[in-house]
Amino acid sequence: MPATIPADSVGIVTPTTLHFDDPLQLQSGKQLDQYDLVVETYGTLNAKANNAILICHALSGHHHAAGYHSKADRKPGWWDSCIGPGKPIDTNRFYVVSLNNLGGCHGSTGPTSINPATGKPYGPDFPIITVPDWVNSQARLADRLGIKCWAAIVGGSLGGMQALQWAIDYPERVENAVVIASTPKLTAQNIAFNEVARKAITSDPDFCEGRYYDFEKIPKRGLMLARMVGHITYLSDASMGEKFGRELRDKAPKFNFDVEFEVESYLHYQGERFSESFDANTYLLMTRALDYFDPAREYNDQLEVAFKKATCQFLVVSFSTDWRFSPERSELLVDSLIKAGKRVSYAEIEAPHGHDAFLIPTPRYVEVFNAYMDRIADQLDIDPGNGSLQAGLGAEGGTA
Amino acid sequence: MPATIPADSVGIVTPTTLHFDDPLQLQSGKQLDQYDLVVETYGTLNAKANNAILICHALSGHHHAAGYHSKADRKPGWWDSCIGPGKPIDTNRFYVVSLNNLGGCHGSTGPTSINPATGKPYGPDFPIITVPDWVNSQARLADRLGIKCWAAIVGGSLGGMQALQWAIDYPERVENAVVIASTPKLTAQNIAFNEVARKAITSDPDFCEGRYYDFEKIPKRGLMLARMVGHITYLSDASMGEKFGRELRDKAPKFNFDVEFEVESYLHYQGERFSESFDANTYLLMTRALDYFDPAREYNDQLEVAFKKATCQFLVVSFSTDWRFSPERSELLVDSLIKAGKRVSYAEIEAPHGHDAFLIPTPRYVEVFNAYMDRIADQLDIDPGNGSLQAGLGAEGGTA
Repeated sequence: MPATIPADSVGIVTPTTLHFDDPLQLQSGKQLDQYDLVVETYGTLNAKANNAILICHALSGHHHAAGYHSKADRKPGWWDSCIGPGKPIDTNRFYVVSLNNLGGCHGSTGPTSINPATGKPYGPDFPIITVPDWVNSQARLADRLGIKCWAAIVGGSLGGMQALQWAIDYPERVENAVVIASTPKLTAQNIAFNEVARKAITSDPDFCEGRYYDFEKIPKRGLMLARMVGHITYLSDASMGEKFGRELRDKAPKFNFDVEFEVESYLHYQGERFSESFDANTYLLMTRALDYFDPAREYNDQLEVAFKKATCQFLVVSFSTDWRFSPERSELLVDSLIKAGKRVSYAEIEAPHGHDAFLIPTPRYVEVFNAYMDRIADQLDIDPGNGSLQAGLGAEGGTA
Repeated sequence: MPATIPADSVGIVTPTTLHFDDPLQLQSGKQLDQYDLVVETYGTLNAKANNAILICHALSGHHHAAGYHSKADRKPGWWDSCIGPGKPIDTNRFYVVSLNNLGGCHGSTGPTSINPATGKPYGPDFPIITVPDWVNSQARLADRLGIKCWAAIVGGSLGGMQALQWAIDYPERVENAVVIASTPKLTAQNIAFNEVARKAITSDPDFCEGRYYDFEKIPKRGLMLARMVGHITYLSDASMGEKFGRELRDKAPKFNFDVEFEVESYLHYQGERFSESFDANTYLLMTRALDYFDPAREYNDQLEVAFKKATCQFLVVSFSTDWRFSPERSELLVDSLIKAGKRVSYAEIEAPHGHDAFLIPTPRYVEVFNAYMDRIADQLDIDPGNGSLQAGLGAEGGTA
């Protein structure tokens, strides 16, 4: 718990659950008859409703991106480093919307939710959700909040894919797409890592073919392994070296299979914690959404054609040591955007932290991010401090 | 099965089991009272017994490095690309010795062997074996074969570590150390991947704390996951892309969790096959030997001091896309050898195959390897075709 809430924090925030009962058609051909989305908002929607920013989360993320749920919280939301008064996504001038995506396990409808058709958790019957499906569900959320056009849609990793998809599917509703540490499609190696994670989960006997809720079980071992593999790919070789090196936990080697090196202990801890808090079916869904994302597929692999209809401006950011979604992947994206004649700014940030760098406010990253968000505020003529509550969730779901 | 045995093959070979009954002291403080080593030899030991080459294997390797065990064999030994008449390790002039290391599961004493103390398989009671332990056991093997000094000790990956350890521990018994796609110590990331593999095995309920033999079980799921993770790290991102891309097995996405992409199918196949043929306790042992290897540890992390006593010449080879043991790791090794005043040749080979490149006879690799082995033959005055059987296993364990 912070002794006092920091001045550049959005403060204590409360999530809100919104119910949608128009059926949502999914890319798979299935549909969701009704669903909930859990949302947090920070800042105030202005009179023109032109200062709204949508935050899209990555694999294990959720709606709680900034601030604290209570004074007892040990840690703020997952992207508190970039969202708040005076931060790149400045809540003094922007109205920030952050949701838990469909299929998630933090309150939005997902595999752990009760399937109205059976009265039991969906489990493996929950349909596969894709990035375009998320974007459609987010468009309905925008309607509900009275947001015709987003000042920016912002996301890192899988979140960046959603920003790209918005630019393609709803060009008239996005002014800017901010795509950080992301990629226009996974490589075979990315898919391979995802498949190891999925296989770890589905081969855990406690997975019970996805119906573990019915048996009051959790595929803990599988989730733990999945997270361990994931964690290795989020960090760079160098940052792992910096953090743990080859340090032994004891001074001399024990010559056994107990935890011997610091890095083993770290991975176990991360895996354990995750396996106690995350849903296995959601993990499967999220990795599959990553695998399937490939907006160029229906355009004969020509990404520049996929972006033809986009009208927004783009900021693309990559990190030098990110080997999960390397700078080359961002450059491929930038090249396609340029070929398609789009306005794009690109920065490769020197940072040692690997893929996780998008969560860490290193100086040049913050500088680039700040400058771009300032430009957005200028171009949209957003007056800092001039916002007044007009629509949206207001105080109920916003900062207290 | 090859229709005819190729002319540059060592032909049909037969392994031999050698029994050792002098207790072997291990680095862990434990000892092995007696043990077997399975060995293959190719070519002929010459009169001076100065043309012997020791092949050290990597994680999942074994004694069968070249040739065929029978005409029915589909594939030759694991390093057939580099061992045989006219190949870099030319059996027309060199006498090649290849063994299965202690702790292995291909006939040498290991966890699957019967523990004389209990009459049951050792299983988890088999002691941890380290690279220095292997080198000591290999020195005894050299004694048995009448080899006072190896013309070269050659190994890729974990095999290269054994060559380095020989140079340090038995300087007078090694003329050359050939260290390919290796490293003087693992990085934290390397250890992390090993730990994921181990955790996959040990958390499989069929592992039964290592006593799965007693229950007639095999931790197949764990072994499969371990191999899948391993495989990703053996290939480069680019070579995986080249091999599989993002190809779907069917034309259109199925939107489910069945095998959807070619790369998933490949990983499953590799994992399945491995889990049917490799022992889980051996996998644990081999990865731990990798983790512990760190000859500089007892010299205050000064690798050049560790190499002080070495007298042999070194060839170090790395591959441009090997991210498991990257060229930077080899350069660190080379720098230390130079600092220590040793004679070292170094080549970084441009090759797309990642870590697996050490098994693939790309032209420049073969050229470098050939040239170095030619120089060895010249320096030791090894007359091609002049060898006659003097010692060693001879026909019994050699080429037929």
